[in-house]
Amino acid sequence: MAWVILGIAAASLTMFGFVPQILKMWKTRSAEDVSGFTLVQFATGVILWMLYGIHLRDFIIIGANAVSLATLIIALGFYVKLIQRVRRKGE
Amino acid sequence: MAWVILGIAAASLTMFGFVPQILKMWKTRSAEDVSGFTLVQFATGVILWMLYGIHLRDFIIIGANAVSLATLIIALGFYVKLIQRVRRKGE
Repeated sequence: MAWVILGIAAASLTMFGFVPQILKMWKTRSAEDVSGFTLVQFATGVILWMLYGIHLRDFIIIGANAVSLATLIIALGFYVKLIQRVRRKGE
Repeated sequence: MAWVILGIAAASLTMFGFVPQILKMWKTRSAEDVSGFTLVQFATGVILWMLYGIHLRDFIIIGANAVSLATLIIALGFYVKLIQRVRRKGE
C-alpha cells in the first residue's frame, strides 16, 4: 500500500509539473525566458507515451500522460499568446 | 519492434525535456520567467519515480528517471545562479 501511495505521489508530481510554470506566466504575463522547445518536446513525448500506453492497454500510462498533455496544451497556448504580445509591442 | 522504438522515442523526449530550457538559460543568461517550483516539483517527482522503480526492480524506470534527475539538477543549479545574479544587481 505504501508503494501504491509512492507511485501515485510520483505520478501526480510529474503529471502536474507544468502547473507552477502556467501560474507564473499567468501572474507575470511574461514568458520570454520559458523554452517553447521544452514545452513542444514534452508534448510530443507524452503523445508518444499515450500511444505506447494504448499499445500496452495500460490505463495508468494513458491517463497520466493525457493529464500531462492537457497541462502542456494550456502552457503552450499561454506561452504563444504572451510571446506574440511581446513581438507586437516590439514592432 | 516498432513499439519498442516508439517507447524509446517517448522516453527520450520526456527524459531530455528540460535540455532546451537549459540551453535557453545558457544563451540568454536569464531565468526570470522560468518557474523554479516546476523544476523542484519535477525533481521531487522523478526521485519518487526512481524509488518506485527500485521497488519494482525495473531498470528502465530507474534509468530514465536518473537521466531526468541529472538534467533537472543542471537546470536548477543554473536557475539558482541566474536568479541570484539578478537579485545581486537589484540590490
